Amino acid sequence: MQFIVEHKEGGARTGKIVSSHGTFQTPAFMPVGTQGTVKAMTSKELETLGAEIILSNTYHLYLRPGIEILRSAGGLHRFMNWDHPILTDSGGYQVFSLSDLRKIDEGGVQFRSHLDGSPHYFTPESVIDIQRHIGSDIMMVLDECTPFPCEKEYAVTSNELTISWARKCQQRFHSSECLYDHQQALFGIVQGPVFADVREHSARILTDMDFEGYAIGGLAVGEPAGQMYEMIEICAGILPQDKPRYLMGVGTPENLLEAIERGVDMFDCVLPTRNGRNAQFFTQNGAINITNARYKDDFTPIDDNCECHTCRNYTRAYIRHLFMVKEILGLQLATHHNLYYYQWLMRSARQAINEGRYFNWKQQQFVKLRNSSYIIN
Amino acid sequence: MQFIVEHKEGGARTGKIVSSHGTFQTPAFMPVGTQGTVKAMTSKELETLGAEIILSNTYHLYLRPGIEILRSAGGLHRFMNWDHPILTDSGGYQVFSLSDLRKIDEGGVQFRSHLDGSPHYFTPESVIDIQRHIGSDIMMVLDECTPFPCEKEYAVTSNELTISWARKCQQRFHSSECLYDHQQALFGIVQGPVFADVREHSARILTDMDFEGYAIGGLAVGEPAGQMYEMIEICAGILPQDKPRYLMGVGTPENLLEAIERGVDMFDCVLPTRNGRNAQFFTQNGAINITNARYKDDFTPIDDNCECHTCRNYTRAYIRHLFMVKEILGLQLATHHNLYYYQWLMRSARQAINEGRYFNWKQQQFVKLRNSSYIIN
Repeated sequence: MQFIVEHKEGGARTGKIVSSHGTFQTPAFMPVGTQGTVKAMTSKELETLGAEIILSNTYHLYLRPGIEILRSAGGLHRFMNWDHPILTDSGGYQVFSLSDLRKIDEGGVQFRSHLDGSPHYFTPESVIDIQRHIGSDIMMVLDECTPFPCEKEYAVTSNELTISWARKCQQRFHSSECLYDHQQALFGIVQGPVFADVREHSARILTDMDFEGYAIGGLAVGEPAGQMYEMIEICAGILPQDKPRYLMGVGTPENLLEAIERGVDMFDCVLPTRNGRNAQFFTQNGAINITNARYKDDFTPIDDNCECHTCRNYTRAYIRHLFMVKEILGLQLATHHNLYYYQWLMRSARQAINEGRYFNWKQQQFVKLRNSSYIIN
Repeated sequence: MQFIVEHKEGGARTGKIVSSHGTFQTPAFMPVGTQGTVKAMTSKELETLGAEIILSNTYHLYLRPGIEILRSAGGLHRFMNWDHPILTDSGGYQVFSLSDLRKIDEGGVQFRSHLDGSPHYFTPESVIDIQRHIGSDIMMVLDECTPFPCEKEYAVTSNELTISWARKCQQRFHSSECLYDHQQALFGIVQGPVFADVREHSARILTDMDFEGYAIGGLAVGEPAGQMYEMIEICAGILPQDKPRYLMGVGTPENLLEAIERGVDMFDCVLPTRNGRNAQFFTQNGAINITNARYKDDFTPIDDNCECHTCRNYTRAYIRHLFMVKEILGLQLATHHNLYYYQWLMRSARQAINEGRYFNWKQQQFVKLRNSSYIIN
């Protein structure tokens, strides 16, 4: 994997990452394909709307379809017919948010499947092995995702565990190989809730370990946005300039723009897809909920400025009808539009940085988005 | 509307129908777009898979979004972004199958909405008015769809009512105009359960009334297939040769091929779409249920012979995974493939008729399909 920084404006930067399945531009937004599919999207549609890399979930893929089937398929790319980069998380987040009866020890984490209660044990080594089976271009280390709020003492202890797991993951990574004919990269994950010193410690140790990229995890879990931005600044100030930085699971358009300003290069979030399925559409002038009665005879597009398939072909009134009568096409059109919007946001941000006008452009976006109220769940 | 018969082989025939929104070839299969959308399909995808005309439901559109919104949109074509022919049923079938507390009289039928229990009254005149608002290229008369089994006495009485409604529909049709800038045609509907003399009487009277086309209704409601084919033969023998014949709500691939042999030109059915959403895929060698465990590591397409987007891009193992984890994309890929298959079936039938080898080709298809067990509900 190669990361090339192209332009900088303050902390913000544009660049590109060259992976085994092609190049993607940064700052990049990765649509979430939890179960080996970005909900309601074909691979072709994902290409059409501008996605250059997607994310999938180790925890979910491990449970279904299972690693044997992924191995037989020749990896996730071939299984899901996506010939571009894929990043997989390590499963840590899902173990802590979805599964029952977790028991953590130095060696790993025991948990029960949220599907059938069956017992499983993830270790730093096993999540690398699973991701070798998946064949993702970028793999993540196993980490403990601490809750918010979190006691300082627990945060420190947890962080030491996460660091020791990162070391074990890296060892397994170096002593194993991709099962298919391509290269895989491994990213470390900075944890440390909202404690500056814990984040600093984590960022320094991981930097010394020399990963190919660094994620900032455990944010947007309930803390005020200001604290999140502060933590990002701290991490970005320590993490190496020549490695990509990935802010996990974040967030709203405003979150993304603030994080880009602080030096983040990669994002993933379920907001565009999940909120779309809940009838919320992102527009360049703020989010709208299409089931609102005011749209019942509004024959204009979701967003006049948008060039996506949804906006070029369908009206607000029709899309509202689809949601009111619970038609699948509504979910498809919403997902398409919202993902297109997020790609538009990244494309516009990159252009603004390249032209040295990012700060002003960002301020303009904030004014346009000021009345947005996002569904967060 | 213009119907041009091109080739004949026994009772079977090919041709084309020229409507205000373009031409479609017959025999034709119309995907069902109950609520102004063919479930899980964009308009563009419908074009891609070869659909030249779709069907929509007056009853459903009347309840939601309602005729005022369709009127403001400029009709259903513009509302749903489908610039090709649309046929609408009259709502009769849904009133008798979905709604509560029906009360029939000479003037029409009182019913309560299946959605909220609100009272409504459909008359022969009002269903024409509603279809004028919808703007469908082909409208249907109001009919009473008799149940199976049905007493002879009831069948005779009901048929007289349906005939008198047909007359009133035709009068309203001739004394009204399309609300938009195109022509609409009106089809009569032959009823008469499985009684040869009632069907004959109905077909003769309706032929005298000179509709632009004729539907055969009230079949595939539980009677043996042999009786259905017998009724089709009786009707086709009486209905005029130079007008299209449309067999409503039928059916399996075998049903379609038998009906084509007996002179049917148009079909609609929910089987490809509904069964697709229930994991059943039609193939040239019979139907398969993709959730069957045997497909879990089958990395071949649904149908090796099929050139649809689903078969060209995705494997059985992947599609099975999508159904097992209840992903929307599974419904999309299934709907696409099954509708493509039905279009392939019509295209192949037309070609066989044009080349004078329909009977042999049909026999070959029956051999290939002999182990199919369709989900019928």
